[in-house]
Amino acid sequence: MKLLHTADWHIGRTLNGYSLLNEQKHAFEQILTIARDEQVDGIVIAGDIYDRAVPNPEAVTALTDMLKKMNLENHFPIYAISGNHDSATRLSSGREWMEYTNFHLNTFLEETFTPIELDTVQIFMLPFFDPLDARVYYHHQGLDDEKVKNIVTINDAMNLIIKDIIKKFDPNKRHILITHFSVTPNKDKEIDLTSETTSKVGGLATLTTEQFKDFDYVMMGHIHTRFASPNKNIRYSGSPVKFNIKEARVKGQSKGVDIVNIDDEITRDFKPITPKTDLIVLEENWDTLCDQNFYTKQPVKEAWFAITVKDFDRSEHVQLNTRSELEQIYGTVVELNYESNSTSLSQQDFTTDITDLSPEKTVSEFFQTIMQEQPSHQQKQLIETIFNEVERDNK
Amino acid sequence: MKLLHTADWHIGRTLNGYSLLNEQKHAFEQILTIARDEQVDGIVIAGDIYDRAVPNPEAVTALTDMLKKMNLENHFPIYAISGNHDSATRLSSGREWMEYTNFHLNTFLEETFTPIELDTVQIFMLPFFDPLDARVYYHHQGLDDEKVKNIVTINDAMNLIIKDIIKKFDPNKRHILITHFSVTPNKDKEIDLTSETTSKVGGLATLTTEQFKDFDYVMMGHIHTRFASPNKNIRYSGSPVKFNIKEARVKGQSKGVDIVNIDDEITRDFKPITPKTDLIVLEENWDTLCDQNFYTKQPVKEAWFAITVKDFDRSEHVQLNTRSELEQIYGTVVELNYESNSTSLSQQDFTTDITDLSPEKTVSEFFQTIMQEQPSHQQKQLIETIFNEVERDNK
Repeated sequence: MKLLHTADWHIGRTLNGYSLLNEQKHAFEQILTIARDEQVDGIVIAGDIYDRAVPNPEAVTALTDMLKKMNLENHFPIYAISGNHDSATRLSSGREWMEYTNFHLNTFLEETFTPIELDTVQIFMLPFFDPLDARVYYHHQGLDDEKVKNIVTINDAMNLIIKDIIKKFDPNKRHILITHFSVTPNKDKEIDLTSETTSKVGGLATLTTEQFKDFDYVMMGHIHTRFASPNKNIRYSGSPVKFNIKEARVKGQSKGVDIVNIDDEITRDFKPITPKTDLIVLEENWDTLCDQNFYTKQPVKEAWFAITVKDFDRSEHVQLNTRSELEQIYGTVVELNYESNSTSLSQQDFTTDITDLSPEKTVSEFFQTIMQEQPSHQQKQLIETIFNEVERDNK
Repeated sequence: MKLLHTADWHIGRTLNGYSLLNEQKHAFEQILTIARDEQVDGIVIAGDIYDRAVPNPEAVTALTDMLKKMNLENHFPIYAISGNHDSATRLSSGREWMEYTNFHLNTFLEETFTPIELDTVQIFMLPFFDPLDARVYYHHQGLDDEKVKNIVTINDAMNLIIKDIIKKFDPNKRHILITHFSVTPNKDKEIDLTSETTSKVGGLATLTTEQFKDFDYVMMGHIHTRFASPNKNIRYSGSPVKFNIKEARVKGQSKGVDIVNIDDEITRDFKPITPKTDLIVLEENWDTLCDQNFYTKQPVKEAWFAITVKDFDRSEHVQLNTRSELEQIYGTVVELNYESNSTSLSQQDFTTDITDLSPEKTVSEFFQTIMQEQPSHQQKQLIETIFNEVERDNK
């Protein structure tokens, strides 16, 4: 059987205030075409379907329309889970009706333990959850209070959950897992963001490949670049659209979906998605940016530009409205930064870091800047607890 | 055929901060029992299903559970529309999947013109809309710009809409309309709220029975009391739960649903719903309220009390925590007011008025108090336009 694996659609997302909805619709149409051309047996969406717990009405309309096209018009089964950006409750409203047309949607931990049974494959769909959800679930399952209290991290919870999933394994079938977390190849090594083209890890404790070794294949969401996939069978499809400047810096084709063939062997085939309005990063000095020989080589007015003006000395350009000048040449300038040689910390480095950091990391780095020391383990736990609660309240 | 008519569930509503969810669930169970006992062919929910455009997750879970029980477990067809409290977009997400199990949900004007075709009956479902929605719709239908501009009020729009609905009439069938507006028997007479037990008309231009004369029966939502039904065949079912103190003052059984039999003749049968926790209004002086002979006759600790202490002179009770005293006797006191003889305008009259008024009326009365004159027709229109836009933005 053949599945299309995609994730992290983040419908409703903006880039510095610019709506990405048209870009997302364009990517969706390509996904649908790939699914048709490949005659897949189902489409997997591994979480972060919406960008927010309470998406705006335009986002709701756009997503509903996409799901309708896939499932009701083209009759593709859908296997979808919620991610940390989705509201489990809001997203799941209506899921019981969707089952009638093979649209399977899991948003709560307890739904994981009833796999979708296909002829030769069991699909387990484990949505994003936090340790508190796992505590509640295992308390209701009658687990000892002491053991429930020991569920502190996602790691603790995941060990229990995977044990319980394995109990449901049919030995005559392949076992596929769909989930939405950070997974690294090695227990002691966190994903190195700086050497990565990824946009965001999301501030959640990282799991290791070892924990997922009993599955034949794992389809992940959460990290937006497929290059973060920890091994051959534990894969991130990445997001179908570039969400930020860092992703736009990557050379070559980076966005797309995986076609996964599950037969005696499991094989994977990457299918690229091309942007409608590309996001182009320029880092040049002012004279180059305004040089006709330079800018006529760019797809001006057809792309979005993130521009860093290098070696910029504002005193030389007091009268200049740089943004307006650049917009006249390039069209849409979604981000504009200046780099002068006078400070070692450029503004651009600073803003890039902030958007890529998790809330926990942001607080932690702020703490360090002010206190000149790392927050203690207890303080870190407190920070994580608070952000979990904030996220929970927003849903 | 037999339909159960209910409306104005307002799932997620609170009464002075007290959640009504348990009360609403209790009413729902009775509705389900009535539907089963009467073996109805469908359940009509005539708008204001949620209380807010963005209901909280508890409300979403509660409603989804109710709809599931009615439609998926008990296999009742559902005919539902959105009201002015619902978000058309949010509520409608998933409706295409619901059609598969005869759960029909209309939230947009354009959906009105495709009736549900049953053997002997056509059901037209016209959700709440505002004049701007009608303008957009008729513009897309190719209506002359001049005529589109003439759609200013709900009345203007309704005349066009009903004409277009009638074009779809099958002369061999009965014609049922489900909708969500204010309708009065007489064009020149607005519903007199003071003599009414209704809680809220909602600040929308009022329509007249004359406009609906071509339908065999009209099932309405919007006004929370069935006593506001303008004639024998244009009916408000009222809300299944008492939402405020004014409704609690009504003597006798006021809440319930209609069972409507549509054969050669159309007959209607009212089925009462009893509250779980009744809302009881007491207006007595302090000594009576604290008199054992009085309060032992009340269902203390089992009901919610809205208490007005009459002839109250605070100077005589400086040391007294009246709320705490009353809560010790009565249990839950959801509203506490004082009436002294020293002022003609009691606090209670004042607050009751504010909560029952529409936003437009509140502004209008404020204007009158300050300016000593009524707002002009133009000013009134401006106020209405602004509130329409505010409501639109919230959805």
